[in-house]
Amino acid sequence: MSTVLQAHRDACDALLTRALEERGCEPELAAAIEYAVLAPGKRLRPALVRLANQCIGGELEKAEAPAAAVEMIHAFSLVHDDLPALDNDDLRRGRPTLHRHTDEATAILAGDAMPMLAMKLLAESPNGSAMCAVLAEATLRMIEGQMMDMAAEREALAADEHNLRSLQAGKTGALLVAAVQLGALSAKASAEQIKALNAWASHLGELFQLTDDLLDATASSEAMGKRTGKDEGKSKLTGVRVYGLTGLRDRIQNCRQEALNALQSFGPEASDLRLLTEEMADRSR
Amino acid sequence: MSTVLQAHRDACDALLTRALEERGCEPELAAAIEYAVLAPGKRLRPALVRLANQCIGGELEKAEAPAAAVEMIHAFSLVHDDLPALDNDDLRRGRPTLHRHTDEATAILAGDAMPMLAMKLLAESPNGSAMCAVLAEATLRMIEGQMMDMAAEREALAADEHNLRSLQAGKTGALLVAAVQLGALSAKASAEQIKALNAWASHLGELFQLTDDLLDATASSEAMGKRTGKDEGKSKLTGVRVYGLTGLRDRIQNCRQEALNALQSFGPEASDLRLLTEEMADRSR
Repeated sequence: MSTVLQAHRDACDALLTRALEERGCEPELAAAIEYAVLAPGKRLRPALVRLANQCIGGELEKAEAPAAAVEMIHAFSLVHDDLPALDNDDLRRGRPTLHRHTDEATAILAGDAMPMLAMKLLAESPNGSAMCAVLAEATLRMIEGQMMDMAAEREALAADEHNLRSLQAGKTGALLVAAVQLGALSAKASAEQIKALNAWASHLGELFQLTDDLLDATASSEAMGKRTGKDEGKSKLTGVRVYGLTGLRDRIQNCRQEALNALQSFGPEASDLRLLTEEMADRSR
Repeated sequence: MSTVLQAHRDACDALLTRALEERGCEPELAAAIEYAVLAPGKRLRPALVRLANQCIGGELEKAEAPAAAVEMIHAFSLVHDDLPALDNDDLRRGRPTLHRHTDEATAILAGDAMPMLAMKLLAESPNGSAMCAVLAEATLRMIEGQMMDMAAEREALAADEHNLRSLQAGKTGALLVAAVQLGALSAKASAEQIKALNAWASHLGELFQLTDDLLDATASSEAMGKRTGKDEGKSKLTGVRVYGLTGLRDRIQNCRQEALNALQSFGPEASDLRLLTEEMADRSR
Protein backbone atom coordinates (compact mmCIF):
# COMPACT_ATOMS: atom_id res chain seq x y z
CA MET A 1 0.00 0.00 0.00
CA SER A 2 1.06 3.56 -0.64
CA THR A 3 3.08 4.97 2.25
CA VAL A 4 1.31 8.31 1.83
CA LEU A 5 -2.13 6.72 2.16
CA GLN A 6 -0.91 4.46 4.98
CA ALA A 7 0.03 7.56 6.99
CA HIS A 8 -3.57 8.82 6.83
CA ARG A 9 -5.42 5.54 7.12
CA ASP A 10 -5.96 5.35 10.89
CA ALA A 11 -6.98 8.99 11.08
CA CYS A 12 -9.48 8.41 8.26
CA ASP A 13 -10.98 5.40 10.01
CA ALA A 14 -11.24 7.36 13.25
CA LEU A 15 -13.02 10.27 11.61
CA LEU A 16 -15.38 7.92 9.77
CA THR A 17 -16.21 6.17 13.04
CA ARG A 18 -16.94 9.52 14.70
CA ALA A 19 -19.08 10.63 11.75
CA LEU A 20 -21.16 7.45 11.89
CA GLU A 21 -21.65 7.83 15.65
CA GLU A 22 -22.74 11.47 15.27
CA ARG A 23 -26.11 10.51 13.84
CA GLY A 24 -27.00 7.06 15.04
CA CYS A 25 -29.40 5.32 12.65
CA GLU A 26 -31.98 2.58 13.06
CA PRO A 27 -29.80 -0.35 14.27
CA GLU A 28 -29.92 -2.62 11.20
CA LEU A 29 -29.37 0.33 8.89
CA ALA A 30 -26.48 1.54 11.04
CA ALA A 31 -24.86 -1.90 11.00
CA ALA A 32 -25.14 -2.11 7.21
CA ILE A 33 -23.72 1.38 6.73
CA GLU A 34 -20.85 0.65 9.11
CA TYR A 35 -20.07 -2.61 7.30
CA ALA A 36 -19.80 -0.74 4.01
CA VAL A 37 -18.09 2.46 5.15
CA LEU A 38 -15.54 0.91 7.50
CA ALA A 39 -14.72 -1.97 5.14
CA PRO A 40 -11.02 -2.60 4.57
CA GLY A 41 -9.86 -0.13 1.96
CA LYS A 42 -7.23 2.37 0.98
CA ARG A 43 -9.23 5.43 2.14
CA LEU A 44 -7.88 7.25 -0.91
CA ARG A 45 -10.64 9.87 -1.01
CA PRO A 46 -10.60 11.04 2.62
CA ALA A 47 -6.80 11.00 2.47
CA LEU A 48 -7.00 13.31 -0.57
CA VAL A 49 -9.19 15.74 1.42
CA ARG A 50 -6.59 15.79 4.20
CA LEU A 51 -3.63 16.01 1.80
CA ALA A 52 -5.17 18.96 -0.06
CA ASN A 53 -5.93 20.69 3.23
CA GLN A 54 -2.35 20.17 4.42
CA CYS A 55 -0.84 21.25 1.11
CA ILE A 56 -2.62 24.61 1.51
CA GLY A 57 -1.65 24.81 5.18
CA GLY A 58 -5.21 24.59 6.53
CA GLU A 59 -6.49 23.48 9.94
CA LEU A 60 -6.74 19.71 9.60
CA GLU A 61 -9.87 19.40 11.74
CA LYS A 62 -11.75 21.48 9.17
CA ALA A 63 -11.09 18.63 6.70
CA GLU A 64 -12.85 16.09 8.90
CA ALA A 65 -16.46 16.48 7.70
CA PRO A 66 -15.61 16.58 3.98
CA ALA A 67 -13.22 13.63 4.39
CA ALA A 68 -15.98 11.51 5.96
CA ALA A 69 -18.51 12.75 3.40
CA VAL A 70 -16.49 11.77 0.31
CA GLU A 71 -15.78 8.31 1.67
CA MET A 72 -19.49 7.80 2.38
CA ILE A 73 -20.27 8.70 -1.23
CA HIS A 74 -17.58 6.29 -2.42
CA ALA A 75 -18.89 3.50 -0.18
CA PHE A 76 -22.47 4.08 -1.36
CA SER A 77 -21.37 3.85 -4.99
CA LEU A 78 -19.64 0.52 -4.35
CA VAL A 79 -22.69 -0.89 -2.54
CA HIS A 80 -25.06 -0.01 -5.38
CA ASP A 81 -22.62 -0.94 -8.17
CA ASP A 82 -22.19 -4.39 -6.59
CA LEU A 83 -25.96 -5.11 -6.70
CA PRO A 84 -27.23 -8.01 -8.84
CA ALA A 85 -28.87 -5.61 -11.34
CA LEU A 86 -25.54 -3.83 -11.86
CA ASP A 87 -22.15 -5.59 -11.54
CA ASN A 88 -23.53 -8.52 -9.52
CA ASP A 89 -20.39 -8.88 -7.42
CA ASP A 90 -20.19 -11.21 -4.43
CA LEU A 91 -16.78 -10.14 -3.19
CA ARG A 92 -15.44 -6.69 -2.33
CA ARG A 93 -12.18 -5.96 -0.55
CA GLY A 94 -11.93 -9.65 0.34
CA ARG A 95 -15.33 -9.79 2.07
CA PRO A 96 -18.90 -10.51 0.93
CA THR A 97 -20.52 -7.47 -0.69
CA LEU A 98 -23.19 -5.79 1.44
CA HIS A 99 -26.16 -7.39 -0.33
CA ARG A 100 -24.55 -10.82 0.24
CA HIS A 101 -23.73 -9.97 3.86
CA THR A 102 -27.28 -8.72 4.58
CA ASP A 103 -29.87 -8.69 1.80
CA GLU A 104 -30.57 -6.70 -1.34
CA ALA A 105 -33.26 -4.45 0.18
CA THR A 106 -31.01 -3.44 3.07
CA ALA A 107 -28.11 -2.81 0.69
CA ILE A 108 -30.27 -0.54 -1.47
CA LEU A 109 -31.53 1.44 1.53
CA ALA A 110 -28.12 1.65 3.23
CA GLY A 111 -26.71 2.94 -0.05
CA ASP A 112 -29.51 5.51 -0.16
CA ALA A 113 -28.78 6.65 3.39
CA MET A 114 -25.01 7.14 3.03
CA PRO A 115 -25.16 10.17 0.68
CA MET A 116 -27.68 11.77 3.04
CA LEU A 117 -25.33 11.30 6.00
CA ALA A 118 -22.62 12.84 3.83
CA MET A 119 -24.77 15.84 2.89
CA LYS A 120 -25.85 16.38 6.49
CA LEU A 121 -22.22 16.41 7.65
CA LEU A 122 -21.27 18.96 5.00
CA ALA A 123 -24.39 21.11 5.42
CA GLU A 124 -23.59 21.51 9.12
CA SER A 125 -19.96 22.54 8.42
CA PRO A 126 -18.56 26.01 7.68
CA ASN A 127 -19.01 26.83 3.97
CA GLY A 128 -21.67 24.11 3.95
CA SER A 129 -23.67 25.12 0.90
CA ALA A 130 -20.60 25.39 -1.38
CA MET A 131 -19.39 22.00 -0.17
CA CYS A 132 -22.80 20.36 -0.66
CA ALA A 133 -22.96 21.74 -4.21
CA VAL A 134 -19.48 20.36 -5.06
CA LEU A 135 -20.23 16.93 -3.65
CA ALA A 136 -23.70 16.64 -5.22
CA GLU A 137 -22.33 17.61 -8.64
CA ALA A 138 -19.47 15.09 -8.37
CA THR A 139 -21.89 12.35 -7.35
CA LEU A 140 -24.09 13.13 -10.35
CA ARG A 141 -21.08 12.91 -12.65
CA MET A 142 -20.14 9.59 -11.04
CA ILE A 143 -23.63 8.21 -11.70
CA GLU A 144 -23.49 9.47 -15.30
CA GLY A 145 -20.17 7.65 -15.69
CA GLN A 146 -21.81 4.46 -14.46
CA MET A 147 -24.60 4.93 -17.04
CA MET A 148 -21.94 5.29 -19.76
CA ASP A 149 -20.26 2.13 -18.47
CA MET A 150 -23.52 0.23 -18.91
CA ALA A 151 -24.07 1.73 -22.37
CA ALA A 152 -20.57 0.54 -23.35
CA GLU A 153 -21.33 -2.97 -22.10
CA ARG A 154 -24.30 -3.31 -24.41
CA GLU A 155 -22.17 -1.78 -27.19
CA ALA A 156 -24.19 1.43 -27.37
CA LEU A 157 -21.05 3.54 -26.90
CA ALA A 158 -18.08 3.60 -29.28
CA ALA A 159 -14.90 2.16 -27.74
CA ASP A 160 -12.71 5.18 -28.43
CA GLU A 161 -10.38 7.27 -26.35
CA HIS A 162 -12.79 10.23 -26.09
CA ASN A 163 -15.55 8.06 -24.58
CA LEU A 164 -13.09 6.22 -22.33
CA ARG A 165 -11.80 9.46 -20.86
CA SER A 166 -15.26 10.92 -20.44
CA LEU A 167 -16.54 7.71 -18.80
CA GLN A 168 -13.59 7.49 -16.41
CA ALA A 169 -13.63 11.22 -15.62
CA GLY A 170 -17.19 10.69 -14.41
CA LYS A 171 -17.08 7.28 -12.83
CA THR A 172 -13.80 7.67 -10.94
CA GLY A 173 -12.38 11.11 -11.58
CA ALA A 174 -15.22 13.36 -10.42
CA LEU A 175 -15.17 12.18 -6.80
CA LEU A 176 -11.36 12.33 -6.57
CA VAL A 177 -11.41 15.89 -7.89
CA ALA A 178 -14.22 16.74 -5.44
CA ALA A 179 -12.20 15.28 -2.56
CA VAL A 180 -9.24 17.50 -3.41
CA GLN A 181 -11.48 20.52 -3.98
CA LEU A 182 -13.26 20.04 -0.65
CA GLY A 183 -9.92 19.69 1.11
CA ALA A 184 -8.74 22.91 -0.52
CA LEU A 185 -12.00 24.68 0.38
CA SER A 186 -11.64 23.51 3.99
CA ALA A 187 -8.23 25.24 4.03
CA LYS A 188 -9.56 28.42 2.36
CA ALA A 189 -7.39 27.95 -0.73
CA SER A 190 -7.21 30.68 -3.38
CA ALA A 191 -8.87 30.21 -6.79
CA GLU A 192 -5.38 29.71 -8.31
CA GLN A 193 -4.51 27.00 -5.79
CA ILE A 194 -7.84 25.24 -6.31
CA LYS A 195 -7.32 25.30 -10.08
CA ALA A 196 -3.86 23.70 -9.81
CA LEU A 197 -5.00 21.07 -7.33
CA ASN A 198 -8.06 20.22 -9.43
CA ALA A 199 -5.83 19.70 -12.47
CA TRP A 200 -3.58 17.41 -10.42
CA ALA A 201 -6.57 15.46 -9.11
CA SER A 202 -7.99 15.07 -12.57
CA HIS A 203 -4.75 13.50 -13.88
CA LEU A 204 -4.47 11.42 -10.71
CA GLY A 205 -8.01 10.15 -11.28
CA GLU A 206 -7.16 9.01 -14.79
CA LEU A 207 -3.95 7.44 -13.49
CA PHE A 208 -5.88 5.63 -10.78
CA GLN A 209 -8.53 4.24 -13.12
CA LEU A 210 -6.01 3.19 -15.76
CA THR A 211 -3.80 1.37 -13.23
CA ASP A 212 -7.01 -0.30 -12.02
CA ASP A 213 -7.76 -1.44 -15.57
CA LEU A 214 -4.17 -2.70 -15.92
CA LEU A 215 -4.35 -4.63 -12.64
CA ASP A 216 -7.76 -6.09 -13.52
CA ALA A 217 -6.17 -7.53 -16.65
CA THR A 218 -2.87 -8.67 -15.13
CA ALA A 219 -3.18 -9.27 -11.34
CA SER A 220 -4.76 -12.19 -9.47
CA SER A 221 -8.00 -12.00 -7.44
CA GLU A 222 -5.99 -13.01 -4.39
CA ALA A 223 -3.58 -10.07 -4.66
CA MET A 224 -6.43 -7.60 -5.29
CA GLY A 225 -8.95 -8.91 -2.72
CA LYS A 226 -11.67 -8.73 -5.36
CA ARG A 227 -12.63 -10.59 -8.50
CA THR A 228 -10.24 -9.66 -11.33
CA GLY A 229 -10.40 -10.42 -15.02
CA LYS A 230 -14.04 -9.40 -14.81
CA ASP A 231 -13.72 -6.85 -17.62
CA GLU A 232 -12.61 -9.57 -20.02
CA GLY A 233 -15.26 -11.09 -22.26
CA LYS A 234 -17.64 -8.21 -21.48
CA SER A 235 -17.71 -5.21 -23.81
CA LYS A 236 -16.40 -3.02 -20.99
CA LEU A 237 -14.81 0.22 -22.11
CA THR A 238 -11.39 0.01 -20.42
CA GLY A 239 -7.87 1.30 -20.86
CA VAL A 240 -6.75 -2.15 -21.97
CA ARG A 241 -9.38 -2.21 -24.71
CA VAL A 242 -8.62 1.29 -26.02
CA TYR A 243 -4.82 1.41 -25.66
CA GLY A 244 -3.76 -2.27 -25.51
CA LEU A 245 -1.46 -3.40 -22.67
CA THR A 246 1.69 -1.69 -23.93
CA GLY A 247 -0.14 1.48 -24.92
CA LEU A 248 -1.85 1.51 -21.51
CA ARG A 249 1.47 1.34 -19.69
CA ASP A 250 2.67 4.32 -21.76
CA ARG A 251 -0.51 6.26 -21.07
CA ILE A 252 -0.09 5.62 -17.33
CA GLN A 253 3.40 7.13 -17.45
CA ASN A 254 2.03 10.14 -19.35
CA CYS A 255 -0.66 10.67 -16.70
CA ARG A 256 1.99 10.45 -14.00
CA GLN A 257 3.99 13.19 -15.71
CA GLU A 258 0.92 15.38 -16.34
CA ALA A 259 -0.09 15.05 -12.69
CA LEU A 260 3.39 16.06 -11.53
CA ASN A 261 3.42 19.01 -13.95
CA ALA A 262 0.14 20.29 -12.46
CA LEU A 263 1.94 20.67 -9.11
CA GLN A 264 4.73 22.88 -10.49
CA SER A 265 3.44 26.04 -8.77
CA PHE A 266 3.80 24.34 -5.38
CA GLY A 267 6.98 23.86 -3.37
CA PRO A 268 7.79 21.25 -0.73
CA GLU A 269 4.25 21.56 0.73
CA ALA A 270 3.15 19.33 -2.19
CA SER A 271 5.77 16.64 -1.66
CA ASP A 272 3.21 14.13 -0.35
CA LEU A 273 1.06 14.76 -3.43
CA ARG A 274 4.08 14.09 -5.66
CA LEU A 275 4.97 10.93 -3.75
CA LEU A 276 1.37 9.68 -3.95
CA THR A 277 1.43 10.26 -7.72
CA GLU A 278 4.59 8.14 -8.07
CA GLU A 279 3.25 5.42 -5.82
CA MET A 280 -0.02 5.26 -7.73
CA ALA A 281 1.74 4.93 -11.09
CA ASP A 282 3.75 2.03 -9.71
CA ARG A 283 1.05 0.27 -7.67
CA SER A 284 0.65 -3.48 -7.89
CA ARG A 285 -2.71 -3.72 -6.03
CA MET B 1 -58.48 15.52 -6.19
CA SER B 2 -58.09 18.20 -3.54
CA THR B 3 -59.01 21.66 -4.85
CA VAL B 4 -56.11 23.14 -2.86
CA LEU B 5 -53.58 20.77 -4.46
CA GLN B 6 -55.21 21.20 -7.87
CA ALA B 7 -54.59 24.96 -7.66
CA HIS B 8 -50.83 24.35 -7.30
CA ARG B 9 -50.43 21.38 -9.62
CA ASP B 10 -49.53 23.12 -12.88
CA ALA B 11 -47.13 25.48 -11.15
CA CYS B 12 -45.45 22.47 -9.48
CA ASP B 13 -45.07 20.66 -12.78
CA ALA B 14 -43.64 23.78 -14.38
CA LEU B 15 -41.06 24.27 -11.64
CA LEU B 16 -40.10 20.59 -11.75
CA THR B 17 -39.62 20.81 -15.51
CA ARG B 18 -37.41 23.90 -15.09
CA ALA B 19 -35.41 22.20 -12.33
CA LEU B 20 -34.76 19.12 -14.50
CA GLU B 21 -33.68 21.32 -17.42
CA GLU B 22 -31.29 23.29 -15.23
CA ARG B 23 -28.79 20.47 -15.00
CA GLY B 24 -29.19 18.27 -18.05
CA CYS B 25 -28.04 14.70 -17.37
CA GLU B 26 -26.72 11.91 -19.57
CA PRO B 27 -29.72 11.33 -21.91
CA GLU B 28 -30.91 7.92 -20.67
CA LEU B 29 -30.54 8.99 -17.07
CA ALA B 30 -32.39 12.24 -17.79
CA ALA B 31 -35.24 10.35 -19.46
CA ALA B 32 -35.58 7.97 -16.50
CA ILE B 33 -35.53 10.82 -13.98
CA GLU B 34 -38.11 12.76 -15.96
CA TYR B 35 -40.37 9.68 -16.20
CA ALA B 36 -40.27 9.32 -12.43
CA VAL B 37 -40.39 12.97 -11.35
CA LEU B 38 -43.03 14.17 -13.82
CA ALA B 39 -45.22 11.07 -13.38
CA PRO B 40 -48.90 11.79 -12.80
CA GLY B 41 -49.32 12.58 -9.12
CA LYS B 42 -50.83 14.90 -6.57
CA ARG B 43 -47.66 16.99 -6.08
CA LEU B 44 -48.55 17.14 -2.39
CA ARG B 45 -45.01 17.89 -1.19
CA PRO B 46 -44.11 20.79 -3.53
CA ALA B 47 -47.60 22.21 -2.94
CA LEU B 48 -46.87 22.11 0.82
CA VAL B 49 -43.66 24.10 0.27
CA ARG B 50 -45.64 26.73 -1.65
CA LEU B 51 -48.56 26.73 0.81
CA ALA B 52 -46.23 27.22 3.79
CA ASN B 53 -44.41 30.01 1.96
CA GLN B 54 -47.71 31.74 1.17
CA CYS B 55 -49.09 31.28 4.68
CA ILE B 56 -46.08 33.23 6.00
CA GLY B 57 -46.40 35.81 3.21
CA GLY B 58 -43.08 35.00 1.52
CA GLU B 59 -41.93 35.56 -2.06
CA LEU B 60 -43.25 32.54 -3.92
CA GLU B 61 -40.26 32.25 -6.27
CA LYS B 62 -38.07 31.57 -3.23
CA ALA B 63 -40.09 28.40 -2.71
CA GLU B 64 -39.22 27.06 -6.16
CA ALA B 65 -35.97 25.24 -5.43
CA PRO B 66 -37.17 23.58 -2.21
CA ALA B 67 -40.45 22.61 -3.88
CA ALA B 68 -38.60 20.84 -6.70
CA ALA B 69 -36.14 19.30 -4.23
CA VAL B 70 -38.75 17.67 -1.99
CA GLU B 71 -40.61 16.20 -4.95
CA MET B 72 -37.36 14.74 -6.30
CA ILE B 73 -36.76 13.07 -2.94
CA HIS B 74 -40.31 11.73 -2.96
CA ALA B 75 -39.95 10.43 -6.52
CA PHE B 76 -36.62 8.76 -5.69
CA SER B 77 -38.17 7.00 -2.70
CA LEU B 78 -41.01 5.63 -4.86
CA VAL B 79 -38.57 4.39 -7.52
CA HIS B 80 -36.42 2.51 -5.00
CA ASP B 81 -39.37 1.24 -2.92
CA ASP B 82 -40.94 -0.22 -6.07
CA LEU B 83 -37.81 -2.30 -6.89
CA PRO B 84 -38.10 -6.11 -6.91
CA ALA B 85 -35.99 -6.40 -3.74
CA LEU B 86 -38.35 -4.07 -1.88
CA ASP B 87 -42.08 -3.83 -2.68
CA ASN B 88 -41.76 -5.39 -6.15
CA ASP B 89 -44.47 -3.22 -7.66
CA ASP B 90 -45.20 -3.17 -11.39
CA LEU B 91 -47.70 -0.33 -11.36
CA ARG B 92 -47.44 3.18 -9.97
CA ARG B 93 -49.87 6.02 -10.60
CA GLY B 94 -51.45 3.93 -13.35
CA ARG B 95 -48.20 3.43 -15.30
CA PRO B 96 -45.40 0.84 -15.23
CA THR B 97 -42.93 1.51 -12.42
CA LEU B 98 -39.56 2.84 -13.57
CA HIS B 99 -37.72 -0.50 -13.39
CA ARG B 100 -40.49 -2.03 -15.56
CA HIS B 101 -40.42 0.93 -17.95
CA THR B 102 -36.61 0.83 -18.31
CA ASP B 103 -34.60 -1.74 -16.34
CA GLU B 104 -33.57 -2.32 -12.76
CA ALA B 105 -30.05 -0.91 -13.10
CA THR B 106 -31.32 2.34 -14.62
CA ALA B 107 -34.00 2.63 -11.93
CA ILE B 108 -31.42 2.21 -9.17
CA LEU B 109 -29.10 4.82 -10.70
CA ALA B 110 -31.89 7.29 -11.52
CA GLY B 111 -33.07 6.96 -7.92
CA ASP B 112 -29.51 7.65 -6.77
CA ALA B 113 -29.26 10.75 -8.96
CA MET B 114 -32.53 12.42 -7.91
CA PRO B 115 -31.49 13.25 -4.31
CA MET B 116 -28.26 14.72 -5.68
CA LEU B 117 -30.20 16.97 -8.07
CA ALA B 118 -32.32 17.97 -5.07
CA MET B 119 -29.29 18.76 -2.91
CA LYS B 120 -27.64 20.73 -5.67
CA LEU B 121 -30.76 22.85 -6.16
CA LEU B 122 -30.95 23.61 -2.44
CA ALA B 123 -27.21 24.15 -1.99
CA GLU B 124 -27.29 26.83 -4.70
CA SER B 125 -30.27 28.64 -3.08
CA PRO B 126 -30.23 31.31 -0.36
CA ASN B 127 -29.99 29.67 3.08
CA GLY B 128 -28.66 26.60 1.24
CA SER B 129 -26.84 24.84 4.05
CA ALA B 130 -29.81 25.01 6.46
CA MET B 131 -32.11 23.68 3.72
CA CYS B 132 -29.72 20.85 2.78
CA ALA B 133 -29.50 19.81 6.43
CA VAL B 134 -33.30 19.73 6.82
CA LEU B 135 -33.83 17.71 3.64
CA ALA B 136 -30.99 15.25 4.33
CA GLU B 137 -32.28 14.58 7.84
CA ALA B 138 -35.85 14.05 6.60
CA THR B 139 -34.62 11.66 3.91
CA LEU B 140 -32.70 9.67 6.52
CA ARG B 141 -35.83 9.44 8.67
CA MET B 142 -37.79 8.30 5.63
CA ILE B 143 -35.26 5.53 4.95
CA GLU B 144 -35.35 4.49 8.61
CA GLY B 145 -39.15 4.28 8.35
CA GLN B 146 -38.76 1.99 5.36
CA MET B 147 -36.38 -0.23 7.37
CA MET B 148 -39.01 -0.43 10.15
CA ASP B 149 -41.62 -1.33 7.55
CA MET B 150 -39.47 -4.26 6.42
CA ALA B 151 -38.83 -5.31 10.02
CA ALA B 152 -42.60 -5.33 10.62
CA GLU B 153 -43.17 -7.50 7.54
CA ARG B 154 -40.90 -10.22 8.87
CA GLU B 155 -42.59 -9.80 12.27
CA ALA B 156 -39.49 -8.38 13.95
CA LEU B 157 -41.45 -5.32 15.15
CA ALA B 158 -44.42 -5.41 17.53
CA ALA B 159 -47.69 -4.33 15.87
CA ASP B 160 -48.54 -1.64 18.40
CA GLU B 161 -49.56 1.98 18.16
CA HIS B 162 -46.16 3.30 19.28
CA ASN B 163 -44.33 1.47 16.48
CA LEU B 164 -46.98 2.36 13.92
CA ARG B 165 -46.69 6.06 14.69
CA SER B 166 -42.92 5.97 14.71
CA LEU B 167 -42.81 4.04 11.41
CA GLN B 168 -45.27 6.39 9.71
CA ALA B 169 -43.65 9.54 11.14
CA GLY B 170 -40.46 8.38 9.41
CA LYS B 171 -41.73 6.83 6.22
CA THR B 172 -44.31 9.49 5.31
CA GLY B 173 -44.30 12.22 7.93
CA ALA B 174 -40.67 13.36 7.86
CA LEU B 175 -40.72 14.54 4.25
CA LEU B 176 -44.09 16.29 4.63
CA VAL B 177 -42.80 18.14 7.70
CA ALA B 178 -39.59 18.99 5.80
CA ALA B 179 -41.64 20.35 2.88
CA VAL B 180 -43.54 22.67 5.20
CA GLN B 181 -40.37 23.66 7.06
CA LEU B 182 -38.51 24.45 3.83
CA GLY B 183 -41.47 26.52 2.63
CA ALA B 184 -41.47 28.41 5.92
CA LEU B 185 -37.68 28.91 5.73
CA SER B 186 -38.01 30.21 2.16
CA ALA B 187 -40.40 32.86 3.55
CA LYS B 188 -38.16 33.71 6.52
CA ALA B 189 -40.71 32.50 9.06
CA SER B 190 -40.11 33.08 12.78
CA ALA B 191 -39.25 30.18 15.11
CA GLU B 192 -42.81 30.36 16.51
CA GLN B 193 -44.35 30.14 13.07
CA ILE B 194 -42.10 27.24 12.08
CA LYS B 195 -43.04 25.40 15.27
CA ALA B 196 -46.78 25.76 14.61
CA LEU B 197 -46.47 24.78 10.94
CA ASN B 198 -44.30 21.77 11.80
CA ALA B 199 -46.93 20.58 14.29
CA TRP B 200 -49.62 20.95 11.63
CA ALA B 201 -47.50 19.08 9.07
CA SER B 202 -46.82 16.29 11.51
CA HIS B 203 -50.56 15.71 12.13
CA LEU B 204 -51.24 16.09 8.41
CA GLY B 205 -48.61 13.43 7.71
CA GLU B 206 -50.29 10.99 10.07
CA LEU B 207 -53.66 11.84 8.54
CA PHE B 208 -52.28 11.26 5.05
CA GLN B 209 -50.74 7.89 5.85
CA LEU B 210 -53.78 6.65 7.76
CA THR B 211 -56.17 7.62 4.96
CA ASP B 212 -53.78 5.80 2.62
CA ASP B 213 -54.03 2.69 4.81
CA LEU B 214 -57.81 3.00 4.84
CA LEU B 215 -58.00 3.36 1.06
CA ASP B 216 -55.61 0.43 0.52
CA ALA B 217 -58.04 -1.72 2.48
CA THR B 218 -61.28 -0.39 1.02
CA ALA B 219 -60.76 1.19 -2.46
CA SER B 220 -60.24 -0.50 -5.83
CA SER B 221 -56.97 -0.51 -7.81
CA GLU B 222 -58.80 1.26 -10.59
CA ALA B 223 -59.86 4.18 -8.40
CA MET B 224 -56.37 4.51 -6.89
CA GLY B 225 -54.26 4.01 -10.03
CA LYS B 226 -52.05 1.55 -8.15
CA ARG B 227 -52.34 -1.94 -6.74
CA THR B 228 -54.51 -1.89 -3.59
CA GLY B 229 -55.17 -4.58 -1.03
CA LYS B 230 -51.41 -5.18 -1.07
CA ASP B 231 -51.06 -4.77 2.69
CA GLU B 232 -53.47 -7.64 3.28
CA GLY B 233 -51.96 -11.05 3.92
CA LYS B 234 -48.56 -9.48 4.60
CA SER B 235 -47.58 -8.62 8.16
CA LYS B 236 -47.53 -4.93 7.26
CA LEU B 237 -47.81 -2.57 10.18
CA THR B 238 -50.79 -0.42 9.13
CA GLY B 239 -53.51 1.69 10.66
CA VAL B 240 -56.06 -1.00 9.79
CA ARG B 241 -54.04 -3.61 11.65
CA VAL B 242 -53.49 -1.51 14.79
CA TYR B 243 -56.85 0.31 15.04
CA GLY B 244 -59.27 -1.86 13.01
CA LEU B 245 -61.44 -0.17 10.34
CA THR B 246 -63.78 1.62 12.75
CA GLY B 247 -60.97 2.64 15.08
CA LEU B 248 -58.97 3.88 12.08
CA ARG B 249 -61.83 6.11 10.93
CA ASP B 250 -62.00 7.59 14.45
CA ARG B 251 -58.23 8.13 14.54
CA ILE B 252 -58.39 9.91 11.18
CA GLN B 253 -60.97 12.32 12.56
CA ASN B 254 -58.78 12.92 15.62
CA CYS B 255 -55.78 13.70 13.38
CA ARG B 256 -57.92 16.10 11.41
CA GLN B 257 -58.87 17.96 14.60
CA GLU B 258 -55.28 17.97 15.93
CA ALA B 259 -54.03 19.36 12.62
CA LEU B 260 -56.63 22.15 12.68
CA ASN B 261 -55.79 22.95 16.32
CA ALA B 262 -52.12 23.39 15.38
CA LEU B 263 -53.16 26.27 13.09
CA GLN B 264 -55.00 28.23 15.81
CA SER B 265 -52.34 30.96 16.00
CA PHE B 266 -52.89 31.76 12.31
CA GLY B 267 -55.74 33.80 10.81
CA PRO B 268 -57.16 33.69 7.28
CA GLU B 269 -53.62 33.32 5.80
CA ALA B 270 -53.90 29.64 6.82
CA SER B 271 -57.28 29.02 5.22
CA ASP B 272 -55.79 26.90 2.42
CA LEU B 273 -53.99 24.78 5.00
CA ARG B 274 -57.27 24.26 6.84
CA LEU B 275 -59.11 23.37 3.64
CA LEU B 276 -56.36 20.91 2.65
CA THR B 277 -56.68 19.27 6.06
CA GLU B 278 -60.43 18.78 5.58
CA GLU B 279 -60.00 17.52 2.04
CA MET B 280 -57.36 15.03 3.10
CA ALA B 281 -59.50 13.63 5.90
CA ASP B 282 -62.33 13.07 3.41
CA ARG B 283 -60.31 11.87 0.41
CA SER B 284 -61.48 8.86 -1.54
CA ARG B 285 -58.30 8.38 -3.66
